[in-house]
Amino acid sequence: MDFLKDRRTIRKYQQRDIPADLLNDLLQMSFRASTVGNMQVYSVIVTRNDEKKAQLSPAHYNQPMVKDAPVVLTFCVDLRRFTKWCEQRNALPGYDNFEWFVTGAVDTLLAAQTFCVAAERAGLGICYLGTTTYNPQMIIDALKLPELVFPLTTVTVGWPAELPEQVDRLPLEGVVHEEFYHDYTEEDINHIYSYKESLPENLKFVLENNKETLAQVFTDIRYRKEDNEQMSKHLWETLKKQGF
Amino acid sequence: MDFLKDRRTIRKYQQRDIPADLLNDLLQMSFRASTVGNMQVYSVIVTRNDEKKAQLSPAHYNQPMVKDAPVVLTFCVDLRRFTKWCEQRNALPGYDNFEWFVTGAVDTLLAAQTFCVAAERAGLGICYLGTTTYNPQMIIDALKLPELVFPLTTVTVGWPAELPEQVDRLPLEGVVHEEFYHDYTEEDINHIYSYKESLPENLKFVLENNKETLAQVFTDIRYRKEDNEQMSKHLWETLKKQGF
Repeated sequence: MDFLKDRRTIRKYQQRDIPADLLNDLLQMSFRASTVGNMQVYSVIVTRNDEKKAQLSPAHYNQPMVKDAPVVLTFCVDLRRFTKWCEQRNALPGYDNFEWFVTGAVDTLLAAQTFCVAAERAGLGICYLGTTTYNPQMIIDALKLPELVFPLTTVTVGWPAELPEQVDRLPLEGVVHEEFYHDYTEEDINHIYSYKESLPENLKFVLENNKETLAQVFTDIRYRKEDNEQMSKHLWETLKKQGF
Repeated sequence: MDFLKDRRTIRKYQQRDIPADLLNDLLQMSFRASTVGNMQVYSVIVTRNDEKKAQLSPAHYNQPMVKDAPVVLTFCVDLRRFTKWCEQRNALPGYDNFEWFVTGAVDTLLAAQTFCVAAERAGLGICYLGTTTYNPQMIIDALKLPELVFPLTTVTVGWPAELPEQVDRLPLEGVVHEEFYHDYTEEDINHIYSYKESLPENLKFVLENNKETLAQVFTDIRYRKEDNEQMSKHLWETLKKQGF
């Protein structure tokens, strides 16, 4: 299972298409992932068209992967299809609420990640765009997502044109708890983050940004409290607007 | 990649343990999944102890997998560890909000699904328990989850003691949209759900439950509007209580 151990995110792609048959095969596999009540409450939007990519690009802060990848996949929670089916079958649906947004998110992300594993196994490279929930309304507009459909994550896919170094991860004991949650002591936190903090690239980030600690690079530059709170508000409002 | 195509959920397990080394190896692989900003905002609680399983069981409506599986994994969104790190490093965290619950959910579920793929590849069987978000408070109590930690999904794992029939999935064209969302017509819905509705086991469900349509089995018995709305309310309240 070295393909799982050795994986890395790929942000640069060859100028080479992904055949429709291969893409469909990978998507079909991904839909074999577990799903609540076998309801498959998700939809996937496949973007290959340059104009559409250009429309999506600003929602993702113009990260170059959106325009450069041959395929961009937007994985959406979709309670609309199931709700329509219920309505056509004389059944009263009740899936326009927060519980089903979260349940749909589980379905959606299991499919998305299965797609990524299958794609990497086939030699493709992928990159997740966490920006999907930062500007959901722009994506909703670009992809014409109707009520009860919500964009949750985006994956850019293509044949790798780079082999970056594998990045660090926290030590296993920093993430796994036996039997119950063992809350972290100050010492635990120091231990868990010490390797990350010692990495030359992270020391460089701290220095270049004129910060005291690596944590400040996250809180002052990358993911700031005021931005997070603003985005929270927008995300919630957009969720409501989409009917959840 | 037949192991992805041929998979099925396994609910019956052999009376045989999973060695700690194997479990840790699979977890380590799962943490190689993509993560927002390489922050890994999740924790996994490993339950092997019978007493703990008995405590978790009612939260999952006493589904037998919880007590029967050698290992139960509860995958939690965890902004606590990262927040503590920020606080210890003179950095102002801002991750106690809805945006970071959703971002954390993405991280958590990519890891969970990578674990499942790796486990199945190693010959194990898994079952997701969607019930995790129905009674989150019971799980929070059983696993002593503190603020900024939230149980999102549960996976039971063990060596398979059954080989069930593979269940149906919607046709690919019912789930995938080219370039933008093509809203479903009445005819589309009829086409997409016709195979599912024609299956003998589903016809039996309809008959046994004295319903007119399969959709009514979902709306009147399995996932009822009033229950969904009640659970939505609890889920939201519990999320607030946990500090998000």
